[in-house]
Amino acid sequence: METIKVAQWGFGAMGQGMAKMLLGKRGVEIVGICDAHPARVGRGMREVLGVNSAQADVLIRRNIDEVVAERGCDICIIATDSFVKHVADKVIAICEKGVNVITIAEEMSWPRAQNAELADKMDAAARRNGVSVLGTGINPGLVMDLLAVLLSACMTDVQSVQCRRVNSLSPFGVTVMEEQGIGMEVDEFDRRVTDGSLAGHVGFAESIGMIDAALGLDVDAVETQMEAIVTEVNRKSPHGFAAAGQVAGVNMTGQGLRGGQVVIDMIHPQQIEPHLGGTHTGDYIVLSGSPGVDMAIRPEIEGGLGTIAMCVNCIPHVINAEPGLKTMLDIPVPHAIMGDFRDFVREGKRIVQ
Amino acid sequence: METIKVAQWGFGAMGQGMAKMLLGKRGVEIVGICDAHPARVGRGMREVLGVNSAQADVLIRRNIDEVVAERGCDICIIATDSFVKHVADKVIAICEKGVNVITIAEEMSWPRAQNAELADKMDAAARRNGVSVLGTGINPGLVMDLLAVLLSACMTDVQSVQCRRVNSLSPFGVTVMEEQGIGMEVDEFDRRVTDGSLAGHVGFAESIGMIDAALGLDVDAVETQMEAIVTEVNRKSPHGFAAAGQVAGVNMTGQGLRGGQVVIDMIHPQQIEPHLGGTHTGDYIVLSGSPGVDMAIRPEIEGGLGTIAMCVNCIPHVINAEPGLKTMLDIPVPHAIMGDFRDFVREGKRIVQ
Repeated sequence: METIKVAQWGFGAMGQGMAKMLLGKRGVEIVGICDAHPARVGRGMREVLGVNSAQADVLIRRNIDEVVAERGCDICIIATDSFVKHVADKVIAICEKGVNVITIAEEMSWPRAQNAELADKMDAAARRNGVSVLGTGINPGLVMDLLAVLLSACMTDVQSVQCRRVNSLSPFGVTVMEEQGIGMEVDEFDRRVTDGSLAGHVGFAESIGMIDAALGLDVDAVETQMEAIVTEVNRKSPHGFAAAGQVAGVNMTGQGLRGGQVVIDMIHPQQIEPHLGGTHTGDYIVLSGSPGVDMAIRPEIEGGLGTIAMCVNCIPHVINAEPGLKTMLDIPVPHAIMGDFRDFVREGKRIVQ
Repeated sequence: METIKVAQWGFGAMGQGMAKMLLGKRGVEIVGICDAHPARVGRGMREVLGVNSAQADVLIRRNIDEVVAERGCDICIIATDSFVKHVADKVIAICEKGVNVITIAEEMSWPRAQNAELADKMDAAARRNGVSVLGTGINPGLVMDLLAVLLSACMTDVQSVQCRRVNSLSPFGVTVMEEQGIGMEVDEFDRRVTDGSLAGHVGFAESIGMIDAALGLDVDAVETQMEAIVTEVNRKSPHGFAAAGQVAGVNMTGQGLRGGQVVIDMIHPQQIEPHLGGTHTGDYIVLSGSPGVDMAIRPEIEGGLGTIAMCVNCIPHVINAEPGLKTMLDIPVPHAIMGDFRDFVREGKRIVQ
């Protein structure tokens, strides 16, 4: 069988990480890269990554039509946006070329949460062209949703779900520092929260939507909150700095409510250098019901590598899926792939034969 | 849509627990029960369970042909055996009636590990009749295999997998006490291990097979060991007793090896009243690689309820599956179902319309 042909749309930190991962895997090949950043367009993949790869070099191009031809590859990874409204046109454009799509756009993990109309359009485009579309990542995608969903399988009854992700932002770059308000004065942070210009974590509505759809908890309202984590000491990370009294992170909280009662509780404080605030990182899931489940992963699963791996590891499942807009609830359990990616693709499902 | 029609074959502790769970669920109905135990045959389900149910009572019958008619129900739960060689004829008999099968027989969670020939026969029978067959449970089925598989999805590379389940046997009945050698003298225990007449935990070859198939770790040999846990103090559980110096449990260990190196490490000490030996129960998974994952569930997930729930919660996935012998790697992520079971069954997949 030919190697699985992968195109990448978006070659920032996540896209580059996926390329490095793909280059280390068997049975899969990067055949095209599209990126908008002037510093990368026209350069070769190897040079941008700073690696020597066994596979042929790939020129980074600005125009997706020069990267993905009609049925020219098996799947296109989109790593350009967080929101359904920004990524939907890209998803549909790839579907129209008869190519499967996987994306780490956070809202795409449960696209109906924010935009049912665009979800329907993407679903129709995928079905019309016989391809499938999946949104995934570490969160949303695994630690605050799919993992809780799987753990619930051992329960006869579930009363409520609590997911808590306490993570460090220290490994992240300048963009994340700005999006999360690191180093801001508290006044400015509060102003930016009020006017909606601070992103914080994107994904609570999606994670709650996924858990509720799986477990049937009848959530009728979703609420989210965003508060500054103010540091008492100076904190410095590779790309961020917060002086004592400034914002060192964001405490994101969210609730899925049924009749005013919290049935899904999301707690997600993220900050630079959490240990300087006495905080130990970790991922925690508490499922109340019969039997109860109390899970901890310490330290938390690393967000960057985790998102890269979730996306690349789901490639065979997306190629195998029936046509349409899919979620993590539709595909088999994803997993690391140390063998040949082709061993996980079913006969007749390849686009490039 | 009609309620989902479920037959049960085997009405011991597990079968009865499943019946209780099913009676509390929406959109699903027990339509027949087959059991071999003279104390139960001819009696009504309600009386045996000691519950009043909203649904019609069901007479427990000895003959499966009187319980499952040709395409007479959507699925049959088999909870009679642990081993493929004992359960395969039953699985095939149900397939030939055009009915889906789910079973908690431990070896059925990865039937090729022990008996590829019988696995092929069951697969052929399922395909011939357009139905699907799945083996599941808490372990094998979730805590020492599927959960590790899912957690690996966030990893770019996996070097090795360690699963450790430290559990209490105190809730279990007389049969389990006997199978695990509780209360035996150490000499007798060792004799019974040597002659192969002590069951211990059934499932390491299956769990290792599932993890290896998913991750592609190229396991070329599986080894297992079984040692007595000798208590230093008297221990008494509802159905078991071990005096100081006697066997209070079994330490099961197993390894999946690649070229003589352990790549999958299974550690599963089970005993009555573990706290009297200073042991804290829990389920632990350590995935070595990038990024590392270190997970703990404390206390361990309760085995009895966990197996009951895994089996009942997988019913819709088995009905939806394409024909054939399936494993937990083939179906979507299982989950608790607090809503109506029919909402999770796809159109055209029902046997009883």
